[in-house]
Amino acid sequence: MLSGGLDSTVVAAWAKSQGYNVNAITFKYGQIAVKETEIAVVISEKLGIPIKMVDMSYLKTVFSGVTSLVDRNIEMTSTFSQPIIAPFRNAIFLSVAVAHAIGISAGKIFYGAHGSDAPFYPDCRKEFYQSFENTAQLGTDTEIQIEAPFSDLTKAELIKKGKKLSVPLELTWSCYFDQEKHCGKCESCMNRKRAFNEAGISDPTEYEE
Amino acid sequence: MLSGGLDSTVVAAWAKSQGYNVNAITFKYGQIAVKETEIAVVISEKLGIPIKMVDMSYLKTVFSGVTSLVDRNIEMTSTFSQPIIAPFRNAIFLSVAVAHAIGISAGKIFYGAHGSDAPFYPDCRKEFYQSFENTAQLGTDTEIQIEAPFSDLTKAELIKKGKKLSVPLELTWSCYFDQEKHCGKCESCMNRKRAFNEAGISDPTEYEE
Repeated sequence: MLSGGLDSTVVAAWAKSQGYNVNAITFKYGQIAVKETEIAVVISEKLGIPIKMVDMSYLKTVFSGVTSLVDRNIEMTSTFSQPIIAPFRNAIFLSVAVAHAIGISAGKIFYGAHGSDAPFYPDCRKEFYQSFENTAQLGTDTEIQIEAPFSDLTKAELIKKGKKLSVPLELTWSCYFDQEKHCGKCESCMNRKRAFNEAGISDPTEYEE
Repeated sequence: MLSGGLDSTVVAAWAKSQGYNVNAITFKYGQIAVKETEIAVVISEKLGIPIKMVDMSYLKTVFSGVTSLVDRNIEMTSTFSQPIIAPFRNAIFLSVAVAHAIGISAGKIFYGAHGSDAPFYPDCRKEFYQSFENTAQLGTDTEIQIEAPFSDLTKAELIKKGKKLSVPLELTWSCYFDQEKHCGKCESCMNRKRAFNEAGISDPTEYEE
């Protein structure tokens, strides 16, 4: 699953470096930052892996009134706040990814969940995706696996990992908005800045502010 | 979750009869029988419950080449066959239903899984949806419940239950095709005929054949 952000990009590059025959999947779900899906396409080309774009923009109607990721009427905060969460969004993505995996005879789904998100986002926690894996195996009668190889790393450690793998980190998109440059103020931009800083790696991102 | 078929219609009517404040949700997923979603709307009006239609028709591209439910190039059989299965489809529906439930502050999702489907469809089995419930609670940090009240009944018993509840069974749509009348030949029409027969209730359906 490749959103076009830092985390999933490093995971995709790592999986490729491990010799997996990687196929990416990315999702439009009505997000303001729909630009990230175009970035995911650019990154998949750079990594030399095929990508499946799934347009579920209609989910905007499900998430409106709930999350600032799709609804401009909800304040986008600079630190974590409840309305940033698009409830169960990643489970929707994982479910479609499972269906797609079965269609293309893939046996494993790589998921960019990591330790810095886990305290805030329930669907980035190990208990969640392990339970999801069990559900997926039961619901498909297969041995399909969900693997989050960097679930124990912080975002800063993930960036270091990416640097070592020569991942084009400068191409990735974290911002929750869709301007030309990263806004530099939303929670996701703040996390990105902080992680580069903590990693001691110069941040290649151009921020509006 | 209301598909417009027999099972989910009886469950919706039963839930209403139990005093629940029922909200229906139905899904376009690229199915040939997209007519069922219109039927779901008619049934929800008849039952006096609001309905949310979620258009994920784009999933046709995920299920093409895999299931005869979306792909006319795959033979539609009269008895169960592997290509009838749209892998993990019901998990996709359940995931979106969970997101919607959280948006409207609903605490429970009713699911029309039953005993006659369980041997053939992994995502109609109790182990599956119980594991899904656990996953949903972990992934949302809520106590959301998935309940399949008739999971131990056969389809025939479900029809009897519906009859007792005065459910408008004649309005429901089972056929995997989208003609004016039920085709009378696909697996789903065959199951419908058989269940009415077993229930000893006269089948109100007009079949092509």
